[in-house]
Amino acid sequence: MRVGPSQDEIRRQNLGALLRHVHVHGATSRAELTTTLGLNRSTIGALTADLAGAGLVSEGTPKETGRAGRPSLVVRPESARVYAYSIEVDRLRAARVGLGGEILDRRDLERPRGLDAGETAPLLAGALKEMHQSVPAGALCVGAGVAVCGMVRRADGLVRLGPTTGWVDEPIGAALADELGIDVPITVGNVADVAAFAEHARGVAAGCDNVIYLYGDVGVGAGIIAGGRRVTGHGGYGGEVGHMVVVRDGARCECGSRGCWETEIGEYGLLRAAGRSDARGREALLALFDAADRGDARAQTAVRQAGDWLGFGVGNLVNIFNPEMVIFGGTMRDLYLAAAAQVRSRLNQVGLPACLEHVRLRTPKLGEDAALVGAAELAFERLLADPLDVG
Amino acid sequence: MRVGPSQDEIRRQNLGALLRHVHVHGATSRAELTTTLGLNRSTIGALTADLAGAGLVSEGTPKETGRAGRPSLVVRPESARVYAYSIEVDRLRAARVGLGGEILDRRDLERPRGLDAGETAPLLAGALKEMHQSVPAGALCVGAGVAVCGMVRRADGLVRLGPTTGWVDEPIGAALADELGIDVPITVGNVADVAAFAEHARGVAAGCDNVIYLYGDVGVGAGIIAGGRRVTGHGGYGGEVGHMVVVRDGARCECGSRGCWETEIGEYGLLRAAGRSDARGREALLALFDAADRGDARAQTAVRQAGDWLGFGVGNLVNIFNPEMVIFGGTMRDLYLAAAAQVRSRLNQVGLPACLEHVRLRTPKLGEDAALVGAAELAFERLLADPLDVG
Repeated sequence: MRVGPSQDEIRRQNLGALLRHVHVHGATSRAELTTTLGLNRSTIGALTADLAGAGLVSEGTPKETGRAGRPSLVVRPESARVYAYSIEVDRLRAARVGLGGEILDRRDLERPRGLDAGETAPLLAGALKEMHQSVPAGALCVGAGVAVCGMVRRADGLVRLGPTTGWVDEPIGAALADELGIDVPITVGNVADVAAFAEHARGVAAGCDNVIYLYGDVGVGAGIIAGGRRVTGHGGYGGEVGHMVVVRDGARCECGSRGCWETEIGEYGLLRAAGRSDARGREALLALFDAADRGDARAQTAVRQAGDWLGFGVGNLVNIFNPEMVIFGGTMRDLYLAAAAQVRSRLNQVGLPACLEHVRLRTPKLGEDAALVGAAELAFERLLADPLDVG
Repeated sequence: MRVGPSQDEIRRQNLGALLRHVHVHGATSRAELTTTLGLNRSTIGALTADLAGAGLVSEGTPKETGRAGRPSLVVRPESARVYAYSIEVDRLRAARVGLGGEILDRRDLERPRGLDAGETAPLLAGALKEMHQSVPAGALCVGAGVAVCGMVRRADGLVRLGPTTGWVDEPIGAALADELGIDVPITVGNVADVAAFAEHARGVAAGCDNVIYLYGDVGVGAGIIAGGRRVTGHGGYGGEVGHMVVVRDGARCECGSRGCWETEIGEYGLLRAAGRSDARGREALLALFDAADRGDARAQTAVRQAGDWLGFGVGNLVNIFNPEMVIFGGTMRDLYLAAAAQVRSRLNQVGLPACLEHVRLRTPKLGEDAALVGAAELAFERLLADPLDVG
């Protein structure tokens, strides 16, 4: 049951709205905040003072505007002081991300295969601790966000199924909390979900309320935004579009089912179709696309066929969600770019005309760092929901 | 950008929350409202007075409680005074629905086939006008909600594709507005969407935030609720799950594509598979289920096969949305009940274990009237968003 907010809640919402604005858009003048947030000047002044008092923003004069008259003060996020940790589990990458979305520090580790959660957590925690030593005194950590390729239980960050790692029920959330020894809340999310979050907040999907971000690696998943909100399902497992079955009783999938979409467009399926079943990993995929580009007939056939299946599944999703935008991330970006004609041709067959009318196909703007930036957004969400409580 | 609400907005939200509570739950004591809405007694008293002043609720003593002491006053929705009109286009049904969801009056018309929007609107408008004559003086109409089997453009209620009617780009919203001559806002929605809305508000899915309501007729569509909110897509076309392609290059579908899910589980596909291609309509389907039940081998095979396909598509949707509940409405209810074993068996093969853990399969609670009640909810939404503006 929805209930109206109290005075305190209004203040909290307004503080969150102002902080979110500078977090997403960067330094903003008081005049512009007044217009954008629909609040009067004295309210903006009071909110800014509160946020500045908590060390979350600072005020200053803008750069030369070229206009006459006294310029409106500019509100900036305290990016160097307020930060979140961010972890990409599958790639063993970690970063410290400042308020405003800037990566302040990062570690890219070597990627050994076959580690479980208990073995992975110390490596990542080590990287974080190393970064933590060079954090300036007085800086504020608002939390840690963690991105995982796989199905993540929202309640506690248990990885139910990780196609890249081969994990089944690995407690990466708990293992990281044990290892870190830094008292910050940890939020674990699916890599496609957090990348979608990042592209929606500050990437190619800014301003779009209905978005599908398709992310491919070994597995294929989607981060889905409907009506401006993330669709993550009852337990946090929503968006497992790679396990939409496209061939009844088709090829065996890692999940135990048959004919899943990712058996046709995922890493293993693509390499198998090209007669490269022994190869593995992103480099092998890029070599395959490269071979297709250079005219290797078998590689071309495999890529075109996978592109056709990519368009097929996207058509289904377009009919189900009626999105404004579909974004191709990870290996789906490579596949889309290598087989755009096949993707579009099949999409146009499968998609309903009304659903095709406004949909745009795009590649990510944030590139390789989308998941790191998005995982940090998971942590910043808590701050933005109640700035002075966290600050 | 989200901004905090003003004083006026808080009051509006609180009025809406109180009115929504009695609309959904019926007569409620002030004491219970205080607890449920988290507002203090004087606020509840003031809000109730405002709503009563606008004629939206009334207060009175409760029925005998058997307890000692002065009983808390009970707040009731003014169901006989405040109402919405509700129309189901494909079945040519119309109703007057009171605040609280009670059907106060209704008309079920004969259903001629082959009418366009311009021919349908006068029939429905006639039924509404007839009902309008017996509305008590001083009653308040908050709007009209319209349910259509098909893809409805949110902006203006244009029916882009109606599988039952055969409509393509028929302006039923505009045609009804022209014919009605009653000055009320008209909102047009898809029948599965509005039925899902009704089951979520006051039916089997009350309290569930992630729900798929599958509705079958000639076509098959879904009303989808994710995170407590309806998923309707960019233009209003979301939920066209019947056009999820399940057989690449399969049987020709009415939409122009091939192998759509509804070619396997929709009315035409089922009747064709049973060798009854000449038959049409719900009665023909019920006769088919009846024949299967009596042991007709061909009918049994067709029903089991369709049940298998039903479980297949539901498995895909369960992987994509991770819902708590799937509801089978319209002909999908009949198919589910006739082939539950096949549905569950295939669902268990296709669905990911984590997504299957909490999902419940259910039939509608509101039965045949779900769409009429849900269409009225479209109209009541405006009232609940700002009670005193409409009241």
